[in-house]
Amino acid sequence: MLSSSTARIDVLKQPTRQDWVEQAIANMDVILLDHSHCERKAAGVALNLMFRYPSNTALVRKLTAIAREELEHFEQVNQWLERLGIPLGFLSSPPYGAGLKAQIRHQEPNRLLDSLLVSGLIEARSHERLGLLAEYCSLPELAQFYRGLMVSEARHYGIYWLLAETYFDSKVVSQRREELAIVESDLLSALHPEPRIHS
Amino acid sequence: MLSSSTARIDVLKQPTRQDWVEQAIANMDVILLDHSHCERKAAGVALNLMFRYPSNTALVRKLTAIAREELEHFEQVNQWLERLGIPLGFLSSPPYGAGLKAQIRHQEPNRLLDSLLVSGLIEARSHERLGLLAEYCSLPELAQFYRGLMVSEARHYGIYWLLAETYFDSKVVSQRREELAIVESDLLSALHPEPRIHS
Ligand SMILES: [Fe+2]
Ligand SMILES: [Fe+2]
Ligand SMILES: [Fe+2]
Ligand SMILES: [Fe+2]
Repeated sequence: MLSSSTARIDVLKQPTRQDWVEQAIANMDVILLDHSHCERKAAGVALNLMFRYPSNTALVRKLTAIAREELEHFEQVNQWLERLGIPLGFLSSPPYGAGLKAQIRHQEPNRLLDSLLVSGLIEARSHERLGLLAEYCSLPELAQFYRGLMVSEARHYGIYWLLAETYFDSKVVSQRREELAIVESDLLSALHPEPRIHS
Repeated sequence: MLSSSTARIDVLKQPTRQDWVEQAIANMDVILLDHSHCERKAAGVALNLMFRYPSNTALVRKLTAIAREELEHFEQVNQWLERLGIPLGFLSSPPYGAGLKAQIRHQEPNRLLDSLLVSGLIEARSHERLGLLAEYCSLPELAQFYRGLMVSEARHYGIYWLLAETYFDSKVVSQRREELAIVESDLLSALHPEPRIHS
């Protein structure tokens, strides 16, 4: 069990298990590189949603801000990589992202609802895990950096929920969120052999 | 013929014709909306290249900066849309982008070279056309805005060339740039019936 000081967002069905923390802290170089990819992917997802729903003004406006911030995070994580002498490079993705993406229904307006909720859940989990890295990481300055980021990711998760509630009935949102949150936790129930932010 | 004060980048084989300026100035609402899409697409292209070449540190670093700036431009153009009461929305793309993309060879390293040169050419043309909008647009404040943007687009074009020369022999770059520049101008030789930044 993780300590009670760990930031946790209500929506997550299961908190992260201790073995993920151990795996991550023992492989901080891989985690940092994977984190860099996560930030770039987060920017890409926001951009793709803006592209798919160009008339949804609230969505476009909010996701522009998210995409800009994710790119800033990407740059910051890359500066950490440089500082620690970790070269940029390809890294295979864990099954988490694809597993969640597979839950997105193809027909509108379900597709929009699911896309927003899946992005929100990923942000919520990132928030939780960056918080764990902040708590357990041995470099105080890196821990400080993670504390800053986890605040942003919590905000992003809030924005995705808010957008879902902008375009959909509150009850529909909560019900679908419940379903997706169960899948999200299930996808992390067994530790992925390779250390990743979402392993 | 356009006035000699029009900013023009050497690499373009043909300057923009007067009928594009007339079409654009007569349809500034559509041009502004299309411009918004162009800025978002420019961010997307930079992001996709970062995704495809994750180990090319110089590329990742420079394109992160470009993607961030394009998103800032996107936000600024959207603020202009709001101010002028033009709703966000879908707009069909002119054949220009697809025509240039079709020139990108599929095999590496040609694919990288062509991608960088095509992006550079689009930036160069954007620079030229935003300069024309700045010159002929009737709203002084909007003209001022375009003057600011055209400076950035010129810088972006420089970055794409520089990246091409980072990864490829100078002679190879110049030769391929010549070929692609001819295609680029050819694609704009007949005015597209719908007003667009790259019509
Ligand atoms: Fe982030
Ligand atoms: Fe985020
Ligand atoms: Fe731009
Ligand atoms: Fe640009």
